[in-house]
Amino acid sequence: MQDALLALTRYWTERGAMVVQPFNTEVGAGTLNPATVLRVLGPEPWRVAYVEPSVRPDDARYGENPNRLQTHTQFQVILKPDPGNPQELYLGSLQALGIDVGAHDVRFVEDNWASPALGAWGLGWEVWLDGLEITQFTYFQQAGGQTLDPVSVEITYGVERIMMALQGVDHFKDIAYAPGISYGEAFGQAEYEMSRFYLDDADVETQRRLFEDYAAEARRLLDARLPVPAHIHVLKCSHTFNVLDARGAVSTTERAKAFARMRGLAREVAGLWSERRAELGHPLGTAPVLEAAPVPTEFAAVEGARTLLFEIGTEELPPHEVTRTVAAVERALTDKLAATRLGHGEIRAYATPRRVIALVDAVEPVEPDAERTVRGPRASAAFDAEGNPTKAAAGFARGQGIDPAELRRVEVDGVEYVGITRTDLGRGAVEVLSGVLAEVVAELRADKNMRWNDPKLSFTRPIRWLLALLGEQPVPVAVSALAAGRTTRVHRTAAEPVVEVASAEGYLELLAGHGIVADQVDRRARVVASATELAATVGGVVDGASALVDEITNLVEEPNALLGSFDARYLELPADILTTVMRKHQRYLPVRDADENLLPHFVAVANGACDHDTVRAGNEAVLRARYEDASFFWRADLRTPPEVMKEGIAKLAFEQKLGSVAQRADRIARIAARLGETAGLSEEDTATLGRAAALAKFDLGSQMVIELTSLAGTMAREYAKRAGEPEAVAQALYDMELPRTGGGAVPTTVPGAVLALADRFDLLAGLFAVGAKPTGSSDPFGLRRAGAGVVAILRAFPRLRALTVPFGLSTAAERVRAQGIEVDDAVLAEVAEFVKRRYEQVLLDGGTPHEQVAAVLPLADAPAVADGTLSELGGLLADPGFAGLVAALQRVRRIVPADTGPGYDPAALVEPAEVELHQVFEKARAGGGVGLAGFTASANALTEPINTFFDAVLVMAPEPQVRAARLGLLAEIRDWAAPVLDWQALGTALEA
Amino acid sequence: MQDALLALTRYWTERGAMVVQPFNTEVGAGTLNPATVLRVLGPEPWRVAYVEPSVRPDDARYGENPNRLQTHTQFQVILKPDPGNPQELYLGSLQALGIDVGAHDVRFVEDNWASPALGAWGLGWEVWLDGLEITQFTYFQQAGGQTLDPVSVEITYGVERIMMALQGVDHFKDIAYAPGISYGEAFGQAEYEMSRFYLDDADVETQRRLFEDYAAEARRLLDARLPVPAHIHVLKCSHTFNVLDARGAVSTTERAKAFARMRGLAREVAGLWSERRAELGHPLGTAPVLEAAPVPTEFAAVEGARTLLFEIGTEELPPHEVTRTVAAVERALTDKLAATRLGHGEIRAYATPRRVIALVDAVEPVEPDAERTVRGPRASAAFDAEGNPTKAAAGFARGQGIDPAELRRVEVDGVEYVGITRTDLGRGAVEVLSGVLAEVVAELRADKNMRWNDPKLSFTRPIRWLLALLGEQPVPVAVSALAAGRTTRVHRTAAEPVVEVASAEGYLELLAGHGIVADQVDRRARVVASATELAATVGGVVDGASALVDEITNLVEEPNALLGSFDARYLELPADILTTVMRKHQRYLPVRDADENLLPHFVAVANGACDHDTVRAGNEAVLRARYEDASFFWRADLRTPPEVMKEGIAKLAFEQKLGSVAQRADRIARIAARLGETAGLSEEDTATLGRAAALAKFDLGSQMVIELTSLAGTMAREYAKRAGEPEAVAQALYDMELPRTGGGAVPTTVPGAVLALADRFDLLAGLFAVGAKPTGSSDPFGLRRAGAGVVAILRAFPRLRALTVPFGLSTAAERVRAQGIEVDDAVLAEVAEFVKRRYEQVLLDGGTPHEQVAAVLPLADAPAVADGTLSELGGLLADPGFAGLVAALQRVRRIVPADTGPGYDPAALVEPAEVELHQVFEKARAGGGVGLAGFTASANALTEPINTFFDAVLVMAPEPQVRAARLGLLAEIRDWAAPVLDWQALGTALEA
Repeated sequence: MQDALLALTRYWTERGAMVVQPFNTEVGAGTLNPATVLRVLGPEPWRVAYVEPSVRPDDARYGENPNRLQTHTQFQVILKPDPGNPQELYLGSLQALGIDVGAHDVRFVEDNWASPALGAWGLGWEVWLDGLEITQFTYFQQAGGQTLDPVSVEITYGVERIMMALQGVDHFKDIAYAPGISYGEAFGQAEYEMSRFYLDDADVETQRRLFEDYAAEARRLLDARLPVPAHIHVLKCSHTFNVLDARGAVSTTERAKAFARMRGLAREVAGLWSERRAELGHPLGTAPVLEAAPVPTEFAAVEGARTLLFEIGTEELPPHEVTRTVAAVERALTDKLAATRLGHGEIRAYATPRRVIALVDAVEPVEPDAERTVRGPRASAAFDAEGNPTKAAAGFARGQGIDPAELRRVEVDGVEYVGITRTDLGRGAVEVLSGVLAEVVAELRADKNMRWNDPKLSFTRPIRWLLALLGEQPVPVAVSALAAGRTTRVHRTAAEPVVEVASAEGYLELLAGHGIVADQVDRRARVVASATELAATVGGVVDGASALVDEITNLVEEPNALLGSFDARYLELPADILTTVMRKHQRYLPVRDADENLLPHFVAVANGACDHDTVRAGNEAVLRARYEDASFFWRADLRTPPEVMKEGIAKLAFEQKLGSVAQRADRIARIAARLGETAGLSEEDTATLGRAAALAKFDLGSQMVIELTSLAGTMAREYAKRAGEPEAVAQALYDMELPRTGGGAVPTTVPGAVLALADRFDLLAGLFAVGAKPTGSSDPFGLRRAGAGVVAILRAFPRLRALTVPFGLSTAAERVRAQGIEVDDAVLAEVAEFVKRRYEQVLLDGGTPHEQVAAVLPLADAPAVADGTLSELGGLLADPGFAGLVAALQRVRRIVPADTGPGYDPAALVEPAEVELHQVFEKARAGGGVGLAGFTASANALTEPINTFFDAVLVMAPEPQVRAARLGLLAEIRDWAAPVLDWQALGTALEA
Repeated sequence: MQDALLALTRYWTERGAMVVQPFNTEVGAGTLNPATVLRVLGPEPWRVAYVEPSVRPDDARYGENPNRLQTHTQFQVILKPDPGNPQELYLGSLQALGIDVGAHDVRFVEDNWASPALGAWGLGWEVWLDGLEITQFTYFQQAGGQTLDPVSVEITYGVERIMMALQGVDHFKDIAYAPGISYGEAFGQAEYEMSRFYLDDADVETQRRLFEDYAAEARRLLDARLPVPAHIHVLKCSHTFNVLDARGAVSTTERAKAFARMRGLAREVAGLWSERRAELGHPLGTAPVLEAAPVPTEFAAVEGARTLLFEIGTEELPPHEVTRTVAAVERALTDKLAATRLGHGEIRAYATPRRVIALVDAVEPVEPDAERTVRGPRASAAFDAEGNPTKAAAGFARGQGIDPAELRRVEVDGVEYVGITRTDLGRGAVEVLSGVLAEVVAELRADKNMRWNDPKLSFTRPIRWLLALLGEQPVPVAVSALAAGRTTRVHRTAAEPVVEVASAEGYLELLAGHGIVADQVDRRARVVASATELAATVGGVVDGASALVDEITNLVEEPNALLGSFDARYLELPADILTTVMRKHQRYLPVRDADENLLPHFVAVANGACDHDTVRAGNEAVLRARYEDASFFWRADLRTPPEVMKEGIAKLAFEQKLGSVAQRADRIARIAARLGETAGLSEEDTATLGRAAALAKFDLGSQMVIELTSLAGTMAREYAKRAGEPEAVAQALYDMELPRTGGGAVPTTVPGAVLALADRFDLLAGLFAVGAKPTGSSDPFGLRRAGAGVVAILRAFPRLRALTVPFGLSTAAERVRAQGIEVDDAVLAEVAEFVKRRYEQVLLDGGTPHEQVAAVLPLADAPAVADGTLSELGGLLADPGFAGLVAALQRVRRIVPADTGPGYDPAALVEPAEVELHQVFEKARAGGGVGLAGFTASANALTEPINTFFDAVLVMAPEPQVRAARLGLLAEIRDWAAPVLDWQALGTALEA
């Protein structure tokens, strides 16, 4: 292992990195070494590499867990500014470690990093080596609350993991550390003893005092304007906090306070460091900024209609951004071309993780010319009596640069003006495209955008090259520092990773020749086909329709499926654990037999041609390690009864004001009880609900869920069952976490549904109350999903219709208020509206016409009710009588001013038509049935009388009493119909 | 610089060292990293190399001092066990750094290391590169209070110093750290800020609390049997202590307490670590032990008398051990050969730092045979009446393995025995020498001995090879793991560092051919000659008689003098500073002109052939840096008035119980006042003494003396003068520190003498009182020198004779008692006796016959008085009358029992001879003059009467009164003579 550290050090020093020593105060990560966290601030360039033994007291396992250490070794690299090719440099470093990047499957898998405590975030990847995460690769965007300019690239190697993989050992202690000395021999005793210290023996009172002393010292040093020693004391604070935490000695309140304090100090340190560096005149100078590419001024002519190829080359895009970007580029190109006069054929867009491609067929060589009239003064004012141009006409002519004699008469809207007709000459295709394509790139945006070494661009990941060809003709495109060329890039491991493209027409085939499947549909099909084929060899199938396949498709340019296996003994673990690990962590497709039973196999999809045996072995080893971990957690958890496990969740912070997860579970239990009462649950369901509520969230205290959070609920069910809880209770605990995603499964049991509602009402009411509502694309607590969940559950459980959204929210608000947090009724109304929007969205997404959605939306506080109405509405739409009724009711509403209340004196009605309407209405109202159908059955009788009334009666009669009575009658009808539907919303669609 | 660190790392890993990371808690030195301080304990092998940023808050200088940093970079190597060739490995590492060890002057200069706080010590060297200390090289003997077995070699490179030398820069900030980044650019801000923290801004109360918390945590962790985290907390303690110290916040009491506490904890950590490793079964195994060399059993024969060559090859011996060992080897060889019958000629011994050589001329090829009589029973008991052997005779014969018939009669002291005569055959010279030489090596001992990889040997430095040749014939010698061969080693940088020796006779010439001057006398002459010659080229001279030349002679095997220069502007500094730096620190010979004025030149003596320009430049740079430092201190000190400077000494610990140096200075001042009164000083001297006493030791608070301790007193005089103190006060402060060495200069002024006495009386009384008296070769406080100093001063100042040693000591004891320390009178008597022994020694060393010394010793409480008596004695020795007097007085003393007191009744005297004696005695006593001469003048009259008395009178008369009167008379005479001299001690020498 020491050779590896030396090799990395050498590699990076040869690339201009300075080497510093690990920090001589305990740090949790190399990022915290001032050589990173302070040096990334400000304009000075910085390139550094160092080893950092990173101390994570919480990971202490006495040296027993094969993959977990209280101190693990990071190798940290900072490249500031982004050199433009950090991924290539990184791959070179793997080569330097002796890793054949051609034989292995090295991938950059989306992973974004944020440390609120440091006021820092960045976008990037975890780097996978045959499925094993070996490196964190991040473009730092912010640190210490400061936006970073230039952006730094941070590369953090997990050295023990890399060594375990390279040496093929299963336990960190077995790593050959130095010739003749294993890792365990060298560090085993320290690992054990430091684990004892962190987990068992550190004195809590002492550590608390240390925390205070360090924090106070940091404060003083900030006041003395000494950011370096202040930072050291923040680090000491942080480490001490971690020790306390590992000792289980941090309450929720303390945690929140401590974090706030450390965050505040860290930000001040960063600010002060920047100030001091500025005062010192930035001793290392200022990082150079890339120059803007020269703006094209000359454009070649092309002959005949040719294909346009436009490729935007990126670093690995997040899978969902691949999909999103391909659509955006197609749309942008379509719109922008439409705004020109350039003729073209079909526009097709493709994308892989590393490129977005647009191909436009039959682009005309030039735009046609266009005539354009420029209008001057009215003809009547343009010439004097002698027919000479007036001053106005002369002025206009001068302004247009023509002789007044050239003015022509033009007629606009029947008025005669003078003016001229100008011909806009069509531009050449290359010129048109040059502008359009530049705009497309400049306007690219993602959900989360970042900056890199480009001075102006911003996107989800760096854009590194542009390729634009019209037939064989390069199209000059300049966007910020990027200039389009005629080369593309193929696999980084290819002998020639940069390839010249001869012409747009052969481009897809060229890529295909390098193994790259540009078309995502093709790629998906290949993934499914090959995975299916592989699974079949072991008598199994994969789920080719799953979203995971979409993700996989966008993680590779050249899908290369391979079948791996794992020890069948792991099948003793609950299948959900196994599949969660496969899917979420490894993006492997589970293989099942015909009876849906898991087989001890998986399909992994590597990128590009690699050595299958090597890659398979690597992926199998990763899965084995993960399953070994999971088995370890499983066995450990089974030794812990649910009640005891639940005690652990008091340690987990939920939200600063709302407290711990334990407090949240308690709120949920109380809300659920109230909802249960209101819904009138059976005795049995009530009992089930009570027990399940008492255990709510207990599995968040399990090692398994701490490790695999997505198994919350799943593990609750497993552990509860095994602890002897009734099946119904176990199921309710499982149901409680449903639905997990937008369209995911909902609870199957009533107690489960009630618990799940209570959970989400608490989430919504609580977080809106403390101001943590979603904004833009930021929804850290998943409130949109929670709102949609409420809707889904209530739709699925019409028998719970008493549990309206406002009722649920106000019940939840009571519990929040009981914690001393103010919850304004306006806020609750806002949440209810927020939930209603989710209902609206789900209907629209399901294809329900927006008029119908709008019509039933007033009923959405009880989505099941709204659903019923919608369904009845569906039945009525074809009924012409209903259309007549709707039109009549809309007519009523239109006539009656909104501020006119109901109530009228029937005696004031005199005309036969109005008397009849009055009588028919009285009868209809008396006979009104349930729901829309019931209402319609009675109300249909009103259509004719209403129409007659309007034909025969002047509503706005001059006599006030008569007018009042007529308006009152109509208002009564309006108000009677209103709760049934938003009639107006149905519009005139039915009439047509 | 980073390349250098990498090169070192690579070099040592290629030699089997493991690399660890710097420790992630602040350490003051790489030694404190557990990879050293714990791993050197116990039997497990360990070979490690690492970088260690070492934090020394006290060295913080805001980055302003060119050579001093609060964090400097050590590169640390531990080789356990000693590989047998660590110096050669080390030189290889310098080559790896790009240092041409052939061109440079690389030397191993004695430097022993001890850390009482760690319970650790070792012997070794500082390694010099052209006079610059670049590495500490130590054989660890003890750590944590444990004797180390195996011994570890510790190599600590001072990386900044090496880089400054290699890069030729004058300030650490100018070191090129990485391509394009200087050390100052990389670390300058941290250096400044951490200096601020350590010197100005660390919160004292906080740091005190931290110290307590860390210490308590260490205590708890020891109790939990966790040595690793306990050690970390001891390190944290230690760093915190250093911070407090740098802040000037540690009082003497605190310092002593803190050290005791840390020492105790560190020892416990070490003990516990060893225990735990044993419990774990020593996971790294047990270091192999060298096998003993096979004991020679076959010995070649040689023909004719040949020269014996015996060479003991060592690593660099301390200079004084070179001298000591050459004498010891010559003596041992002489004695041991004398105990054999092997004939031989002259024995000559030579030595260099790396070898001790004995050459014995004309060694005979064999011992002569020898006859030996073995005595049995008396002849009378050997045969029975029949002439047959008795049982006794038979038994004897059987025991001797002969037939009783072979018994012969032998006469011993006139008695006849039976016995046999055996012939001891002479052994061959090779066999004899094999045994003798092995013993010589095995018995080698030095003042301070160490162990290395040899399982049995112990010496001042490792013995690495033996060479023994009798003529051309190898003499097999086996001592522990060493076996003699026929090769020697020449310069390590030679192309062939190991050279075969053809025969003993040509050996010295062979060495000379490799440049090595084996004979120390020759070598010294060469040093003096070449230095003198070089000095003459600049019109100067060197002091060829100085002890420094002896030292230099023993620092090199091949003296290579070169003349260096320094900037003349440094001559503005006091010459003592300049010469102290040259002599003590650099072993350079100062060059003076005819008027004794320093010239800006020096002579350095390199070892072996090297590139003169390179080495000169290096040495000049070192001197420049040191003078630059000194100038910096000088200027800084001159800004500080003596009173203010003196405040600083309260920070300096003197001894745990006796307190700080400030307390000691206060005691000295009070003692001096009392001594002055008693001595009856003039008014002027009293004033001078008072002022000087008030400032006593103030210069120990100066930066100069802190750096160059031997300048204490010298700087006091300089600074006092410049601060406007009277010349006499300045001189008294200078005198106070005299004499500095055994025969060194004594004070020249009375106030200075009194202060110097007070200083030494305090030292002696105080340290004996607290039990810190010297034992064996250990005299850490220099008490022998102090005792000798008292004697020297009192001898030089007869007018201070009232200040007897007991008076001085009891005066000093009063001050010590005033601090609450008990001082037993018996202890004071012991000290007085200790001082008397110093006086005795100095007289004997000066050649005074021991009888005379013994005779005046009773007067040694006032050495000047004893001196006077001795001088008078010298005048009297030739006087026969005096001899008679002495004999008479001795006769008196012999006759009178010791317990007979004086006093007699003259009336009881009846015989004329006794009456006459009585009368003459009365007269003599009445006329007694001063001193021995005065006494003798009167006492001479007694010689005759005494002799007559003894001839005529029976002292032991039967009548009690008569006997009592006679004895009483004699006792009176005895007691009258006793204070003058120890008459008995003069013995009978005078009579002859």
